Amino acid sequence: METRANQHRVVVIGGGFGGLATVRGLRDADADVLLVDRVNHHLFQPLLYQVATALLPPGDIAPALRAVLRDQKNARVLLGEVTGVDAQAREVKVALPDGSFRLVGYDTLVVAAGSTDSYFGHDEWQKVAPPMKSLAHAVHLRSQLLRAFEVAAVTEDPEERRRWLTFAIVGAGPTGVELAGQIADMTRRTLRGQFRDLDPTQVRIVLLDAAPSVLPPFDEPTRAHTRRSLERLGVEVRLDEMVADISEDGVVTKPMQAGDDAPSRHVPARNVIWAAGVKAAPLAAELARATGVETDRKGRIVVRPNCTLPGHPEIFAVGDMINLNDLPGMAEPALQEGHYVAKVIRARLAGRYAPKRFRYLNLGSMATISPSDAVADIGKLHLRGTIGKIAWALVHIAFLVEWRNRIAVLVEWFWFLATGRRAQRIILEPVHHPGSVEGDTRASA
Amino acid sequence: METRANQHRVVVIGGGFGGLATVRGLRDADADVLLVDRVNHHLFQPLLYQVATALLPPGDIAPALRAVLRDQKNARVLLGEVTGVDAQAREVKVALPDGSFRLVGYDTLVVAAGSTDSYFGHDEWQKVAPPMKSLAHAVHLRSQLLRAFEVAAVTEDPEERRRWLTFAIVGAGPTGVELAGQIADMTRRTLRGQFRDLDPTQVRIVLLDAAPSVLPPFDEPTRAHTRRSLERLGVEVRLDEMVADISEDGVVTKPMQAGDDAPSRHVPARNVIWAAGVKAAPLAAELARATGVETDRKGRIVVRPNCTLPGHPEIFAVGDMINLNDLPGMAEPALQEGHYVAKVIRARLAGRYAPKRFRYLNLGSMATISPSDAVADIGKLHLRGTIGKIAWALVHIAFLVEWRNRIAVLVEWFWFLATGRRAQRIILEPVHHPGSVEGDTRASA
Repeated sequence: METRANQHRVVVIGGGFGGLATVRGLRDADADVLLVDRVNHHLFQPLLYQVATALLPPGDIAPALRAVLRDQKNARVLLGEVTGVDAQAREVKVALPDGSFRLVGYDTLVVAAGSTDSYFGHDEWQKVAPPMKSLAHAVHLRSQLLRAFEVAAVTEDPEERRRWLTFAIVGAGPTGVELAGQIADMTRRTLRGQFRDLDPTQVRIVLLDAAPSVLPPFDEPTRAHTRRSLERLGVEVRLDEMVADISEDGVVTKPMQAGDDAPSRHVPARNVIWAAGVKAAPLAAELARATGVETDRKGRIVVRPNCTLPGHPEIFAVGDMINLNDLPGMAEPALQEGHYVAKVIRARLAGRYAPKRFRYLNLGSMATISPSDAVADIGKLHLRGTIGKIAWALVHIAFLVEWRNRIAVLVEWFWFLATGRRAQRIILEPVHHPGSVEGDTRASA
Repeated sequence: METRANQHRVVVIGGGFGGLATVRGLRDADADVLLVDRVNHHLFQPLLYQVATALLPPGDIAPALRAVLRDQKNARVLLGEVTGVDAQAREVKVALPDGSFRLVGYDTLVVAAGSTDSYFGHDEWQKVAPPMKSLAHAVHLRSQLLRAFEVAAVTEDPEERRRWLTFAIVGAGPTGVELAGQIADMTRRTLRGQFRDLDPTQVRIVLLDAAPSVLPPFDEPTRAHTRRSLERLGVEVRLDEMVADISEDGVVTKPMQAGDDAPSRHVPARNVIWAAGVKAAPLAAELARATGVETDRKGRIVVRPNCTLPGHPEIFAVGDMINLNDLPGMAEPALQEGHYVAKVIRARLAGRYAPKRFRYLNLGSMATISPSDAVADIGKLHLRGTIGKIAWALVHIAFLVEWRNRIAVLVEWFWFLATGRRAQRIILEPVHHPGSVEGDTRASA
């Protein structure tokens, strides 16, 4: 144990890109670093859609935090949910896995709790349109997608069968585009010839967004290419359409910029996926309450240029839960903010000068469309097609945490490219009818 | 579609070792083969404990049945649970994933529905001592094992902490032995140095059985070696002890062959795993009801020497759910029976002679104890230690379904041997406290 009684205590909340970068950046600091997270793993969110579509096993993109930090002597991990902040006493309240609570004192606090899905005030939609933010969501969605084809295969009513084969994805950002492309590929390659009674041309994939374009943060030529590519894959791209309602029967939309009496359109679908809105994690509101700082309309904390909270130089916040020049909620800003905050803390501990403001180096944006097509905007450079896909693959492999995962993911990708097969094609829960006495359903409930 | 209206219809229930061997054995038969299973995957049960201990991802041992049979033109797959058999009408009733039922007619029926856990009349124990039969069980147990260490790490009461670090495994057959060895290795290698506040010597692994020996079907020198090896790994092997009660606080045992007033012993443990009893799947009772055949005390169907049901030459049963010379409920008898039944059906269809009775070729038994130690009894040959482990590994790799899985499992094993790390160390469900508003727990419930 390297911890001394009078050592500077850094508490980092959240083991995502921002939090983990902070902890690792402090590896040589004379500090006792405690990482608190509600889950036991880091999550490489950019590949989450590949878990949801049965391509990668969860472990390949989610290394255990304790394993990642095994060699960092000044870091400890605590599995728990931070439910309260006392900025005066410099303590956070942590709900522990045994059901108890613990007060944890800090000298420096780094809050990196990320974002959660936002249903724009319609939380009741979540039941029928599950989100795609956590590993649990992705595994759940995987079962749901695979099961949809199985249900369609046994459904005799043609209308109902078509509803089961319709996948409506709300939100045409990177996650929505990537899911749409993967579901199209799953239909065309993975499942081909494996359902004798299903006609692949009956599969309908609808990508909906209220914005006038797919991938809004990308440049216009990239957006146009993405839309064309998706349409070639058979995806219906419907833009400028606002979701008015979601139910078990599908999605009701209204055209944007039209009056209240504009006719609504209905997409009959048994599979609706929510890839639309995000808002800051609830901890942002608690932090605002505890310190009096402002939040923006997405619930994000408005931080100072050096990522600290106004009036609280000892509290930093990074990643998706902050608003700093309205940077997008993606891995790269969070990573860079984490590195920066670690540098500031090291400098303070050593009594050195630290850069007064965080500067974001825009390395560009990337999204994948299909196994052979990805887009990347890097400054004025627009990559697409195979070249884009290779660039995309290299960057994603490089940013994966742990060498083991880099190799495992590469091997899975090559095998998938060669065969079109998805190794993690598993519906965990067995078919179950009410009168059955079988044992297997009990543990999976 | 290769099916003709007047083609011989073979319905196979269950895609485990026996059922899948039957279906594949019929690939050149002039028959329409329908495989019905409650889950969408085959399960390579001998490696299930490696999923439960975070070593392998589920997909590596559970290929989708549709993918396995993608090139077999005369085979179809139906996801559903068979809930009834009408032997007169030659129909089975299938509960489908859309909640409806379908009657499926057959000319030949092969029932290979396997076994389920048996709590010897104490089904209430299942809540506190989960079983290890299906993939869903293994994923559930994985979370539970990993969480136990996390809970222990935050528990301040030393008694309670020790209870969280105690793993009581009921049943010293192969599954119990393998789980005990893996949990010991997890403590010694995987988690070493990753829990600053936990003392590995506090971990207690208790392997309980009412029998006088571990691995009862093995030869005496093998059993003695296994017991010594487990004890060297720190496992407490307690034999001749009958489980009298299981609760959240642990296990109560009584010595065998003692009177009712014999003193009971208590193993305080928050982790109890049931690896003890199995009985035939409930479908065996339904089949007995429908045909009037006998079942034994484990609920298994007593079949004729050619695996058919007395009075019903058109109904075969194979695998764990039958009693044929009391063969053990393992992969090898099921596989061989499946091959044999396919041969009989092919012969009948071609009007050829078929062997009148199934003959079991005993290829021996194997079990693994630790990453460097396994035992194998092959005729008079007893392998153990590294040689045993190599033999064990070769056999298990060879019997895995799909080349992709063979390679993937080999790579995982080498990486694990070299590093002691477990790539699938994932607790899917986040820590959650009642007042929390976080989104991630909802979908994983």
